[in-house]
Amino acid sequence: MEIKDSSSSAPNDSSTGTEPDIPSNTETRSSQLHPKESPPPRPAPGYTFDGQTGWEKFRLLRPGWGMYHDVRRRLPFYRSDITDAFTYRTIASTIRPNLYKSLLPALAYTLDMDRRPNGFYGVNESLFSSALAAMVFSTISAQPLTIVGITGLISLFNYTIYDIIEIYDVTLYPRFMCWTAIWAAIFHWVVAFGNLCDYMRYVTDFSSEVFGMYVGIIYMIKGVEELVSLFDSYGVVDGYLSCVIAILYFATVYALEKLGNGVLAKPWARGLLADYAYPIATLFWVGFSHIPGTLKRSNISTLPITRAFYPTQQRSWLIEFWTLDVKWIFVAMPFGFLVMLLFYYDHNVSCLTAQAKQYPLKKPGGFHWDFFLLGCTTFIAGILGIPLPNGLVPQAPVHTDSLTVYETELRVIATEEGEGNEIRRPIVKASKVVEQRVSHFLMGLGIIGTMTGPLLIVLHTMPRAIFSGVFFVVGWGSIESNGITKKLLFLLSERRFIQSNDPLLQIPRSKIWLYLFCQMIGVALPVAISQTIAAIGFPVLVCILIPFRWVLMPKFFSLKELQVMDDLTATNEVVLASLGGAPKIADTSSTEGFGLEREFSERRSGVPRQRVGSFHR
Amino acid sequence: MEIKDSSSSAPNDSSTGTEPDIPSNTETRSSQLHPKESPPPRPAPGYTFDGQTGWEKFRLLRPGWGMYHDVRRRLPFYRSDITDAFTYRTIASTIRPNLYKSLLPALAYTLDMDRRPNGFYGVNESLFSSALAAMVFSTISAQPLTIVGITGLISLFNYTIYDIIEIYDVTLYPRFMCWTAIWAAIFHWVVAFGNLCDYMRYVTDFSSEVFGMYVGIIYMIKGVEELVSLFDSYGVVDGYLSCVIAILYFATVYALEKLGNGVLAKPWARGLLADYAYPIATLFWVGFSHIPGTLKRSNISTLPITRAFYPTQQRSWLIEFWTLDVKWIFVAMPFGFLVMLLFYYDHNVSCLTAQAKQYPLKKPGGFHWDFFLLGCTTFIAGILGIPLPNGLVPQAPVHTDSLTVYETELRVIATEEGEGNEIRRPIVKASKVVEQRVSHFLMGLGIIGTMTGPLLIVLHTMPRAIFSGVFFVVGWGSIESNGITKKLLFLLSERRFIQSNDPLLQIPRSKIWLYLFCQMIGVALPVAISQTIAAIGFPVLVCILIPFRWVLMPKFFSLKELQVMDDLTATNEVVLASLGGAPKIADTSSTEGFGLEREFSERRSGVPRQRVGSFHR
Repeated sequence: MEIKDSSSSAPNDSSTGTEPDIPSNTETRSSQLHPKESPPPRPAPGYTFDGQTGWEKFRLLRPGWGMYHDVRRRLPFYRSDITDAFTYRTIASTIRPNLYKSLLPALAYTLDMDRRPNGFYGVNESLFSSALAAMVFSTISAQPLTIVGITGLISLFNYTIYDIIEIYDVTLYPRFMCWTAIWAAIFHWVVAFGNLCDYMRYVTDFSSEVFGMYVGIIYMIKGVEELVSLFDSYGVVDGYLSCVIAILYFATVYALEKLGNGVLAKPWARGLLADYAYPIATLFWVGFSHIPGTLKRSNISTLPITRAFYPTQQRSWLIEFWTLDVKWIFVAMPFGFLVMLLFYYDHNVSCLTAQAKQYPLKKPGGFHWDFFLLGCTTFIAGILGIPLPNGLVPQAPVHTDSLTVYETELRVIATEEGEGNEIRRPIVKASKVVEQRVSHFLMGLGIIGTMTGPLLIVLHTMPRAIFSGVFFVVGWGSIESNGITKKLLFLLSERRFIQSNDPLLQIPRSKIWLYLFCQMIGVALPVAISQTIAAIGFPVLVCILIPFRWVLMPKFFSLKELQVMDDLTATNEVVLASLGGAPKIADTSSTEGFGLEREFSERRSGVPRQRVGSFHR
Repeated sequence: MEIKDSSSSAPNDSSTGTEPDIPSNTETRSSQLHPKESPPPRPAPGYTFDGQTGWEKFRLLRPGWGMYHDVRRRLPFYRSDITDAFTYRTIASTIRPNLYKSLLPALAYTLDMDRRPNGFYGVNESLFSSALAAMVFSTISAQPLTIVGITGLISLFNYTIYDIIEIYDVTLYPRFMCWTAIWAAIFHWVVAFGNLCDYMRYVTDFSSEVFGMYVGIIYMIKGVEELVSLFDSYGVVDGYLSCVIAILYFATVYALEKLGNGVLAKPWARGLLADYAYPIATLFWVGFSHIPGTLKRSNISTLPITRAFYPTQQRSWLIEFWTLDVKWIFVAMPFGFLVMLLFYYDHNVSCLTAQAKQYPLKKPGGFHWDFFLLGCTTFIAGILGIPLPNGLVPQAPVHTDSLTVYETELRVIATEEGEGNEIRRPIVKASKVVEQRVSHFLMGLGIIGTMTGPLLIVLHTMPRAIFSGVFFVVGWGSIESNGITKKLLFLLSERRFIQSNDPLLQIPRSKIWLYLFCQMIGVALPVAISQTIAAIGFPVLVCILIPFRWVLMPKFFSLKELQVMDDLTATNEVVLASLGGAPKIADTSSTEGFGLEREFSERRSGVPRQRVGSFHR
């Protein structure tokens, strides 16, 4: 394993990694990386703090440097972001991950919030927030692939803060939330101007797998909680019927996706199935719940709606935040900091995974600028009293996935004996990504459309059980495809059936167990506290994983072991440029040669397509 | 393809087929077939009508000849049928397919019959019938591997006859059923003494796949019907909760079996999972339905029971059949004939599939003797007014399967390039079958135990929903592993991913479609009529498939095509001996060389283990 000392040597771009060892440097890498294609015009990034000296090495002393470069790097692509969109994939990905994967969970979280903070956030608030985020980020963000919306974590935050405020004075809640958002916005801007997003380049699969697993488990729990609440609110008939629908909805989407990713039928028919598994299942099961007879008479509970465009509660859209006591304004500050910390991790990891190594992206990222924008939407959402939007995991990577053109290729492996002297195996290749901002924008329009009276009534026909089903699909997808699950399956498999060139075989099993143990602790702690008032401390736990990985783990694991098991979450140079290039670590001096296990798996069976809701892998 | 003209040349015994081309003849085949093992003492079968001349070629003129040979051939093994049983597999197979796979469906059909012929057949009748069959066939049958019990088809018969009798005089029903059974018994004896079971040697996968698919579909329909009836009888709460339990029960068994047949964990742990998937799932979901709180309050309907050992209705066990009008006695005759025809096919196919080619059996079969015995049990069951038992598909082959010792071997395929120069693949081998009669006997004892008061009360705790779940598991297993499904998947698969040495590629796709079309008609007709009063004509439809296959199909298909797609259901010489040897067909002159597709699949991935409820494949 050759370890280079060049500061600019980046890890292999796995998608174009046919020449992994070309010596690249910051200025010339773009032309060398894709030598066979004529690349679109791209300015040299020129943004990094690595190797800086004197006062220049302090990020906070050069405010806005990262943001400036983000805009400068991305602006030339703005025109092509629109012109590139005129393909079928844009339509498919507007419907598949966007409408279905952000609208449904957003509404699902509304149900969740509806129950908890006494109905302050309703369907209108959720839709408004999703629409705001979609419009802002689709038009002026530097990374329009990242879907922004309402997550389960912000819902968790909202009602945990409600539980805390309730102890003192429940009428403070709207204004307190507003000030929390204002503080959060301020901290966002500090981070964005201070170039502090750079640290996200240290995010590896170690922590993003933990986060994906955590999110998956929380989704599953929410699905069950939603069903349980139906029993409490609407009685057993509603409850049991909802269980039936939720389970069968899950099974339908799962089966359709499996079919769509198999080798049955023609590729285009499979593609349609995979693209429209969500709409097909949703239409079917919504219709099912309205079949006249026993089903209709059971009168299953549906999504609660209120008058279009008005807040759920009797109030104006603007929160009168200036009437809050100064004491409470300052109490809100630490909460605002925690919200920022949550978004710092959650939003940026969404961006990273939406631009992860398996996608052959050509357009640059822009983390600082987007985080600044996120501060703006946080501020607006705060003073309007709507849930705070941020980047969605797993919807953001699923969005990129649905924009990726996959080709199922045939690999014929010649064998030396038997088997007719060959083995045929489908290999999935990601040939290109339709990088554009139109699908995100159309999704925003779709959500605005949904906010109007007539479409609200359509939404009202949806059984709440469907949302539980969505939680199950998204949650299970995140768990099933997670690296933690995969390593666990490796350890549980009978040794003799493992391919003898699997890189995991090169390291001691005890080390894999240790690695998994660290990850599982990382999952178990936040899951445990998320059921308590301590849930607001969750962002601290997640962020700690990054330094833990880089500072402590090299003491337990050899470089080789980490190279096999771990990898940077995003290795694409055009993406890392926004973060100042690939990280340089003290005792490894480079990130080359990581991700051996992933490379092995991709060489063997191609890149994994994102199944519904699956986290990147 | 060498085609032999020797009348005694039998198709390859696929389990011991290492020397497929040895010239064998009737007298010496036993010693030649297993030259490496010292075989147990076995008399030469010497029973066949092939090549006979003059009056000797008429089967009916030599009554009892087949039965005599059956007994003579099998009797020497009686001692070893008991001594061979002292292995763990006997225990596992007593619990796995027997208790769970015949008791549960028997009870499930009771629910079915309980609803239809006005409660004439209850739990006690079902248990009595199952116990009677198990005791008789485990002790004195020639083929103790064949599980005998109550099938869905006899349940269908019972209530179709009820629907007919109801038109005239409903009080006739018990006595009419009794006479139907008496006539059926007489016809059984005629067939057994007349050596007419011989024609079962012509049963190929063509018709047994049709039958398996039909049974699977009927099982699924029954599962749904059972759930629907709960809505009607017990209201929506019961209905929806039952749906939840039935679906999750199905999912649990399915998932456990999948795990048990994978490569995770140690082989012994996998084996335990596969063996006990049914009991684990049943215990769990019965317990689930009794969890205090909402579930317990829902008061789900359970298996209805009555006083132990007494008939469900107020009557003595003996039906007063002698009081029936002579007119009605003769009306019962055609019904009796149809019952016999049903059992002729159903029971004998059960025996064939329980002794099918994939099992390395060493002990001989005895179809004539067993059919005679079936006549006896039909007679006894008839005059006692209990459902008529017969051989169970798919339980009989599952019984053999659970007695088979499988070994998962590793095949390392050397490749010429890439992939680390090898591919590792698990291959399942059937190394031996524990051929004994003790597991069947223990199952009988278990059923008798269940008939006692205390255990009846345990049964009473089982939600009816579990039985729907059982229907789904058994039905889906039969559909999923069916040859029809496999050919359909082949046709739907993208061409380029099919192994180039797959024998199905050697014949035109249109011919495969035609073959499937014939099979699907064969499935659709009986499914369609089974919902009407014409259901009693079902046995005729099924039996017609055998001559259709041998007389008409060779006109549409070339020999080569049939050799690829079809195969005798049982090819084991020791089994076919009871039927007078392998069939000799006019224009093919031999059955050598059939079953190429199956051979290909077994060479590639080993013999398929029977999944829960899967029909032979």
